[in-house]
Amino acid sequence: MATYSPSTHCPSSSAYSNNSSLINRIHQRTTFPSIPRKGFRPTKLYLHQSSNGVSVSNAVHVQDGAKSMKESPVESDGPVKILKDGILSVPPVTPPEESIDVASFDFNKDKSTVSITVVGASGDLAKKKIFPALFALYYEGCLPEHFTIFGYARSKMTDAELRTMVSKTLTCRIDQRENCGEKMDHFLERCFYHPGQYDSPENFLELDKKLKEHEAGRVANRLFYLSIPPNIFIDAVKCASSSASSAKGWTRVIVEKPFGRDSESSSALTRSLKQYLDEDQIFRIDHYLGKELVENLSVLRFSNLIFEPLWSRQYIRNVQFIFAEDFGTEGRGGYFDNYGIIRDIMQNHLLQILALFAMETPVSLDAEDIRNEKVKVLRSMRPLRLDDVVTGQYKSHTRGGVKYPAYIDDKTVPNDSLTPTFAAAALFIDNARWDGVPFLMKAGKALHDRRTEIRVQFRHVPGNLYNKNIGPGLDVATNELVIRVQPDEAIYLKINNKVPGLGMRLDRSNLNLLYAARYSKEIPDAYERLLLDAIEGERRLFIRSDELDAAWSLFTPVLKELDDKKIVPEYYPYGSRGPVGSHYLAARYKVQWGDVGDVGSQQ
Amino acid sequence: MATYSPSTHCPSSSAYSNNSSLINRIHQRTTFPSIPRKGFRPTKLYLHQSSNGVSVSNAVHVQDGAKSMKESPVESDGPVKILKDGILSVPPVTPPEESIDVASFDFNKDKSTVSITVVGASGDLAKKKIFPALFALYYEGCLPEHFTIFGYARSKMTDAELRTMVSKTLTCRIDQRENCGEKMDHFLERCFYHPGQYDSPENFLELDKKLKEHEAGRVANRLFYLSIPPNIFIDAVKCASSSASSAKGWTRVIVEKPFGRDSESSSALTRSLKQYLDEDQIFRIDHYLGKELVENLSVLRFSNLIFEPLWSRQYIRNVQFIFAEDFGTEGRGGYFDNYGIIRDIMQNHLLQILALFAMETPVSLDAEDIRNEKVKVLRSMRPLRLDDVVTGQYKSHTRGGVKYPAYIDDKTVPNDSLTPTFAAAALFIDNARWDGVPFLMKAGKALHDRRTEIRVQFRHVPGNLYNKNIGPGLDVATNELVIRVQPDEAIYLKINNKVPGLGMRLDRSNLNLLYAARYSKEIPDAYERLLLDAIEGERRLFIRSDELDAAWSLFTPVLKELDDKKIVPEYYPYGSRGPVGSHYLAARYKVQWGDVGDVGSQQ
Repeated sequence: MATYSPSTHCPSSSAYSNNSSLINRIHQRTTFPSIPRKGFRPTKLYLHQSSNGVSVSNAVHVQDGAKSMKESPVESDGPVKILKDGILSVPPVTPPEESIDVASFDFNKDKSTVSITVVGASGDLAKKKIFPALFALYYEGCLPEHFTIFGYARSKMTDAELRTMVSKTLTCRIDQRENCGEKMDHFLERCFYHPGQYDSPENFLELDKKLKEHEAGRVANRLFYLSIPPNIFIDAVKCASSSASSAKGWTRVIVEKPFGRDSESSSALTRSLKQYLDEDQIFRIDHYLGKELVENLSVLRFSNLIFEPLWSRQYIRNVQFIFAEDFGTEGRGGYFDNYGIIRDIMQNHLLQILALFAMETPVSLDAEDIRNEKVKVLRSMRPLRLDDVVTGQYKSHTRGGVKYPAYIDDKTVPNDSLTPTFAAAALFIDNARWDGVPFLMKAGKALHDRRTEIRVQFRHVPGNLYNKNIGPGLDVATNELVIRVQPDEAIYLKINNKVPGLGMRLDRSNLNLLYAARYSKEIPDAYERLLLDAIEGERRLFIRSDELDAAWSLFTPVLKELDDKKIVPEYYPYGSRGPVGSHYLAARYKVQWGDVGDVGSQQ
Repeated sequence: MATYSPSTHCPSSSAYSNNSSLINRIHQRTTFPSIPRKGFRPTKLYLHQSSNGVSVSNAVHVQDGAKSMKESPVESDGPVKILKDGILSVPPVTPPEESIDVASFDFNKDKSTVSITVVGASGDLAKKKIFPALFALYYEGCLPEHFTIFGYARSKMTDAELRTMVSKTLTCRIDQRENCGEKMDHFLERCFYHPGQYDSPENFLELDKKLKEHEAGRVANRLFYLSIPPNIFIDAVKCASSSASSAKGWTRVIVEKPFGRDSESSSALTRSLKQYLDEDQIFRIDHYLGKELVENLSVLRFSNLIFEPLWSRQYIRNVQFIFAEDFGTEGRGGYFDNYGIIRDIMQNHLLQILALFAMETPVSLDAEDIRNEKVKVLRSMRPLRLDDVVTGQYKSHTRGGVKYPAYIDDKTVPNDSLTPTFAAAALFIDNARWDGVPFLMKAGKALHDRRTEIRVQFRHVPGNLYNKNIGPGLDVATNELVIRVQPDEAIYLKINNKVPGLGMRLDRSNLNLLYAARYSKEIPDAYERLLLDAIEGERRLFIRSDELDAAWSLFTPVLKELDDKKIVPEYYPYGSRGPVGSHYLAARYKVQWGDVGDVGSQQ
């Protein structure tokens, strides 16, 4: 079991090679059907491509840590026991580092398969993100050789109808159009549909029967992607777990936000989930963690010496996490109105990025080590105070003859809604590294532009020789590191530079890395990475229960206070830069928002 | 005296404004005829242009430090005395900071002038660099309103002939062609010629007479640019000083390398010079110090916090100074053969850049403060050992049917010459900041490319989490800061970055600042900056006698040893990467030359 075999070359990593002779060693993430081995499934192997050729590293990384022992192969001779989560258990085998025997690898590839069920298959997310991501993984050879995809939803639909629906949103990689039509056809042939209620064990049993037909006796691993509203969430988990778990492979469930509305409801949800699933079967997705530049954040920090001494209160003046959308709810405010921007963006996406940014160096890159550090940071933070929050809501605005609607003009939103569509907040981490450094967040809808970015503003140069040249504007002229998550992924470092010419004038220039200029390949969608990770059992980018608890405990008090006191948000015009209050909040901590007046990474 | 008035707007600094709203305060280097003031000549004023407009700073910077008192205005009521260097002296006036009275400024602009005499006017450097630089300064409004340029050489020539000669090498700024022809004509009208011997006091007296005619009773400042061979150097200085010094203004002399062949000859030269000139009249030019990115080196270091913690042995593994030319002596080896690449490039250009790079933070940006720190660094260095030097000489090479000559094929070079056309050296600074950090230099002619650059290689990341991913090639993957002085001025910082895609693969990308992409203005030639500085009395970029002594004392022992032992250089083919010995030398200190395989700043 746990023995699926992706096609030989998921080119996920190797596809991006370039011509530099200084290209460093390649780490290819893949399992190796070509190097069969008995008795143990390395879920990931690392290939070190040296300049002399390719050699297999001695180190086998078991991505699930201790849990991996549960996922031992069926070929094991030891006693086998079926656990609650539907996967087999054997006594621990010899630790992988000591037991490698390349000649005896055996993935038993014809005997394993993965079945992916998209629950809520007719929904928007499924159509726009999940199916296209699955196709992209298939296209790139990242799915196992044997796989089946099932759509599950209440609507009546045939397999053919599902395929028609799915085919409309599939696109080929801009840079890999070869055989795309053909591959699409093959992919669609593996897609099926089963109609059913989300709370019906019978319907899930029917699904289970169909899955088994397709699995045809192979070791079956099952992934359920729950793309359904929160109120039917637990019912679906219960049915999937009880009626459609894999008998011989793993069963994993990807769940989407919202994970509750506050500490209490979140805990209740977790408790309910854990009635039916083990922690390691739950994959709480935060798609921001799958974004390329968020993934790169740790690489930047931990593999570049130049950032090492800088990453603390000694050199960093403040850090900003900025999320802006240039559109409103546009008729889909029903769900949003019950949550608001703080729950929808801050408490999860921005806080997750903050935790990755600010955490101490983990023992290793393994999921549990990283998540342990993230929890520590979150637990070192002060719960947010009402004083440190500014909320806003967009109002109608006419520009160029076009009238842009107010939030409450959205028909799915109550007329008297006080739900914030904008929020700014100042957070603090009371540990040795970050004491006193403001971590500012800003998130809003219907703003003047669209961007997600991390901005690190460095302190002033002590005893700056150039004070005379720079003048009192020195505050403005400190270094700044910008990691632009979207759109137009980029990293740039603002430095002071002499303006060429006979005089001595300084200005700020960017040391610039524009992804579009550097990398010709399309950057994969966050969902691709996360789906692949879930299939591979890599939990690094998914949120653990204790992380979720810590995150909620930071925001719950202020969310309650906002609700209880019926705090009226500051109204800002659709398409504006948001409430002026966010500037006052920043100014209180001597911060200036970095996105104001920064047109990006143009040089 | 000392009261020349450049035209109101030498746009040297303001010409490069751009549109960023974050542009910092402007420091305009100019004197202000528009703000007349009596009794004191501020040689430089700093304009702080705030976002609200332009205000004159209270601080008046007297660029000559204590010496400036000598250059007090003739309008002074105090007793006046003519000093050895031909300028007037008055008792110290009230210190400038306390005596500012904007209303009483008076530059007496109609009464001052600058006369620039290019001694050796028919030489290559004069034609290719000095006259064009003077024209560029004129074109940009950086020369005083009244100025005269004299060519002086042995050849018979009329003013008209000089003008014809000069006009052939004048070019207009690529981006400022407006009125160029007209301005050229005006400039040429101010150019004159006087033929004479370099050792003839009579001929210099004739020159003096002509200069006086043009100066027409104005306060006359005189700058002599000695562009002549070293053997007639002192004679010319003697004649210029004794027969053609300014009676009422300053007299300054720009001298070119070679400043001797070793400690002894250099000291002798300095002693001779000082018979006729004060230290503050001597402007030893090293045109590398006038290059834009060398000027920017201190800005980068001292105005960017991010570099502050990195600039020491704790983070820097080694520093490299690389000079490469892709052509040989090509029939002009006569002078070179007597000096060799170490004296021609290393002991001056590269060592000067090294000193700027490695010096401690100066008290201020004033010339003496900076030169003090440079001397300290040079004096902290170990004299170079023969063991730490590799020399080479290019040999003939045929490529693509073209035969490239050997150094000794140059008709002006002796057949048995052992003069190195290539050298690599490892230097060490035995102070707290740099103990144990190798500073490597490499300079050569007839190599495969042309470049001058500074490369800072940082240490490895301690406890690198990504060791597993990067593999044993980690040594290669450390951060590197590259400052490319020429061609294609650029700054780039090599960082490790996640290659976009589903895998976790790292490569090195550049955080990149390409000047051509960022700044649309042409970068001024080094000679423009240095000539302007000499006119303004700014000594920061000129080499003081004690600096020169310290520089020679590092290289003299090994130069003597090379000569005495008749060390045979390693022969390398014309157009190659130079002797393999330079790699062994680097390897001995665990260094890999950064220019190998680095194609530059392409992303």
